[in-house]
Amino acid sequence: MAVKTIEWRDNSVRMIDQRLLPAREVVRTYRDYKGVAEAIRTMVIRGAPAIGVAAAMGVALGIRNTAHAQASARFAMVAKALKATRPTAVNLAWAIDRMGRVLEANLELDAGELFRAMRAEAIAIYEEDLAVNRSLGKFGNELVGDPATILTHCNAGALATAGYGTALGVVRAARDSGKNIQVYADETRPFLQGSRLTAWELRKDRIPVTIIADSMAATVLSQKKIDCVVVGTDRTAANGDVANKIGTYPLAVMARRHGVPFYVAAPLSSIDLNCPNGAAIPIEERAASELTEFGGKRIAPAGVLTYNPAFDVTPAELVTAIITERGIAYPPYTKSLRALKEKS
Amino acid sequence: MAVKTIEWRDNSVRMIDQRLLPAREVVRTYRDYKGVAEAIRTMVIRGAPAIGVAAAMGVALGIRNTAHAQASARFAMVAKALKATRPTAVNLAWAIDRMGRVLEANLELDAGELFRAMRAEAIAIYEEDLAVNRSLGKFGNELVGDPATILTHCNAGALATAGYGTALGVVRAARDSGKNIQVYADETRPFLQGSRLTAWELRKDRIPVTIIADSMAATVLSQKKIDCVVVGTDRTAANGDVANKIGTYPLAVMARRHGVPFYVAAPLSSIDLNCPNGAAIPIEERAASELTEFGGKRIAPAGVLTYNPAFDVTPAELVTAIITERGIAYPPYTKSLRALKEKS
Repeated sequence: MAVKTIEWRDNSVRMIDQRLLPAREVVRTYRDYKGVAEAIRTMVIRGAPAIGVAAAMGVALGIRNTAHAQASARFAMVAKALKATRPTAVNLAWAIDRMGRVLEANLELDAGELFRAMRAEAIAIYEEDLAVNRSLGKFGNELVGDPATILTHCNAGALATAGYGTALGVVRAARDSGKNIQVYADETRPFLQGSRLTAWELRKDRIPVTIIADSMAATVLSQKKIDCVVVGTDRTAANGDVANKIGTYPLAVMARRHGVPFYVAAPLSSIDLNCPNGAAIPIEERAASELTEFGGKRIAPAGVLTYNPAFDVTPAELVTAIITERGIAYPPYTKSLRALKEKS
Repeated sequence: MAVKTIEWRDNSVRMIDQRLLPAREVVRTYRDYKGVAEAIRTMVIRGAPAIGVAAAMGVALGIRNTAHAQASARFAMVAKALKATRPTAVNLAWAIDRMGRVLEANLELDAGELFRAMRAEAIAIYEEDLAVNRSLGKFGNELVGDPATILTHCNAGALATAGYGTALGVVRAARDSGKNIQVYADETRPFLQGSRLTAWELRKDRIPVTIIADSMAATVLSQKKIDCVVVGTDRTAANGDVANKIGTYPLAVMARRHGVPFYVAAPLSSIDLNCPNGAAIPIEERAASELTEFGGKRIAPAGVLTYNPAFDVTPAELVTAIITERGIAYPPYTKSLRALKEKS
């Protein structure tokens, strides 16, 4: 993709503002951790791996110009603020904790050296994410036929990661291996990550994409138009229960009903072995305005109540396979996910 | 409800423009059948019973000032134009065919008398629809507990009928019988009949309503927040397969999965015994712009494909009961629906 989701440059963090895509390509620049936290919270950047990278870069910004003696206290404050932005994706906490370990290991350095070590780690997390996505894509490609029509939900693409993508990384790897691939993209209400972001980045890569409303996926599956479903995940529990964008669970139910394989593209950083099952995953609720307004204009009448959970949990029994950068996990996931996480 | 969906006045047809609700209450006036046909096609008015009433009134307008000798040919042309507007709802054809029978029975009258007979029939269809909804609501109320939280999809309310509503008629009858009722309304992409219309008319009647995205219904059902689902239908086949707004089928699947009763409010005019099953129901596809634009603004990137079926088919096996104005039908529907249709 020609456009970078996130980038460290000149001791600042640059992000394309995903709220404005595809109409406008606006790059925002953040010079302190508070700006990065606000960008994550307001979804300038979104997608579990991408917000992990953003949080790591935010920590590096936050630790800059901090006197040696205050580094630990400063890190604690910065980490707390960044972790509070969005609760469901585990990559956020994973990346921040990783930055914390680098801090602990380098507390004897002076302020400038400590910042450079932290910056190097944030950039390493960014670069590893790219490599992880490419490896995950290769494994996922083994599950994709030729030709294949792949249904996806939300955006688990280049825009949700440092680049390339998880679910869309599988799509790209399949296409790049010479297969004839097309995609159906759920528009993904309320934020429209599907019609705005997935469609935009697939068009840039000249991969044919058909937009449907979320409620049309059941019809498309019943018509045997889909060879497999591939989605991302914000957090997958030790037993294989998958938290992902709201609407993933009914999609998995409909895929099972119509005999279509349901695959989850999950970098190991999104698999949380400390979380026994989906019930233990915190589910973020977002603002009513996502449902009652559109582009600043009111859709719904005044006085209505709303309920706006951003994620749902797909039970492991509905997941055909979980694709990671170290290989493909099959049920029982309690065993297979741990084995992949512990593989080195 | 204070606002009339459709009304015959001074030999013209008035409709509230449902495309502009809830932001603006604009009443449009049509003086010829072409205007009525365009209003149905562009969804100024929508909802199976409402477009049946509109089509009947459109036929009456179309036959006005037609010389006696040309009446049959004129009717054929007008009927064809009105039937072509939207293919799925059977009420449209049902109402037009009923107008045709009145024409045939009165061909000996002069032009003015024929028009008055046709006008009387259109107004009778309107008034019967109101009575049908009230009767259907009473039967449906027998299925509703106290308190009850009812989930609905699209708008099968006063705005989808001559008034009162089918699915929302059940809600109103339950509330009016003294029960403590609240509603969850799927927003219903792409036209947002739920967040725009259902929320609007329930707010007017002071019935508490919570808007969710269509993809959130599965979560709400899994959380045991819903006592029953009640939806309308555009056409129900002889075997009980139900065509209704896109998204109804996955909703029925999720209701079954979570043990929640799934009820269809179906005036007998929407039950098509000539249609053996759902596969025989024509499913309308609507314009790409419903998915790619919002309020005239582009959402999706240029060059994307779309697929926009307006309805889906829920298999009879997922339907707990079908509520009509003559009583409640239970499986096997092939028997129970015919029995209700033939009851006098």
